[in-house]
Amino acid sequence: MDIKREIRIIGIDDGYFNKKIDKETIIIGVIFRGYKQIDGVLSNKIEIDGFDVNEKIIDMIKRTTHYNQLRIIMTNGVSFGGFNLIDFKYLYNNLNLPIISVVRKRPNIEKFKLAAKKIHNYQKRIDIINNYPEINFYDTMYGRLFFQYYGTDLDTAINIIKLTSKYSRIPEPVRIAHIVAMGVTRGYSRGKP
Amino acid sequence: MDIKREIRIIGIDDGYFNKKIDKETIIIGVIFRGYKQIDGVLSNKIEIDGFDVNEKIIDMIKRTTHYNQLRIIMTNGVSFGGFNLIDFKYLYNNLNLPIISVVRKRPNIEKFKLAAKKIHNYQKRIDIINNYPEINFYDTMYGRLFFQYYGTDLDTAINIIKLTSKYSRIPEPVRIAHIVAMGVTRGYSRGKP
Repeated sequence: MDIKREIRIIGIDDGYFNKKIDKETIIIGVIFRGYKQIDGVLSNKIEIDGFDVNEKIIDMIKRTTHYNQLRIIMTNGVSFGGFNLIDFKYLYNNLNLPIISVVRKRPNIEKFKLAAKKIHNYQKRIDIINNYPEINFYDTMYGRLFFQYYGTDLDTAINIIKLTSKYSRIPEPVRIAHIVAMGVTRGYSRGKP
Repeated sequence: MDIKREIRIIGIDDGYFNKKIDKETIIIGVIFRGYKQIDGVLSNKIEIDGFDVNEKIIDMIKRTTHYNQLRIIMTNGVSFGGFNLIDFKYLYNNLNLPIISVVRKRPNIEKFKLAAKKIHNYQKRIDIINNYPEINFYDTMYGRLFFQYYGTDLDTAINIIKLTSKYSRIPEPVRIAHIVAMGVTRGYSRGKP
């Protein structure tokens, strides 16, 4: 795939929550042209440790007037609002958009599965995790970035990461989604995605 | 004042609210380096038609680690959450930061005062409005922008508007504060600031 400098990308991250008090948290989608200009911001609510993140992402994206211009989804990791897990195949089939999930540290799938054991509906979560695409890495000029992708090829995924990791190893759409999500749920943004 | 390309600016706008239901709405502050990079997002709640917007802006800005790097505040107009009015002098004296308020259409002060008549504490609001700095305009490459400023000089205000109105006549910090505020309160951003 030829990556245009102004390719429309939506970056997604979740807000802060307190597991003891909150039943839900916000997810934020930031629509970028390439790595520079912000075209829009979307939001929705998801259940903590629920199973609704995929439906809520689909709903949020289908409702925006930018939907038909979007070419790719980038997410901060694969779980939101605790253990509410992204289902790559389901998102792709419903939105017809490839997904790239990025993280700063190499994910430890075994640890991840052990953590899932402590949450309700363990088997359902394990089934989703077992279907996850393999973990790749790419060395940006700011350091190593780990990623998983679905609905596109490795070259395209790397080209999109290259284009968007201009100010940090974290691609701009995901970095800004993180900053917005923290800013609106905590009152200030702090900490890296 | 010499304007550095990476000057730290906070752009402020308020969220959507329904006057019949809501008692408060969100204000969003987006911290920019010049017109390009976002360094942080802040938020706070203000009363609809209240008098707390100045305290809430001061509180929000004093609490961020970016405070000592900030050089200027830009706001979308002079009233937030209905008729909760910016007090230029009060903000400047408490934060030691100049303020530039920008709007797309020339403000009509007489109409504004008539509208204020319908809200409680009319005289208090009129006193604030009567203290407002004069209205200037600057023709950006996208069209005319009206603005008021306090705590700096006309040249500096124009230079900052020039630097930041790169993608629209509305300076980037204010444009993005608007998009974020709408995105988190309505679920999607639509409409121009």
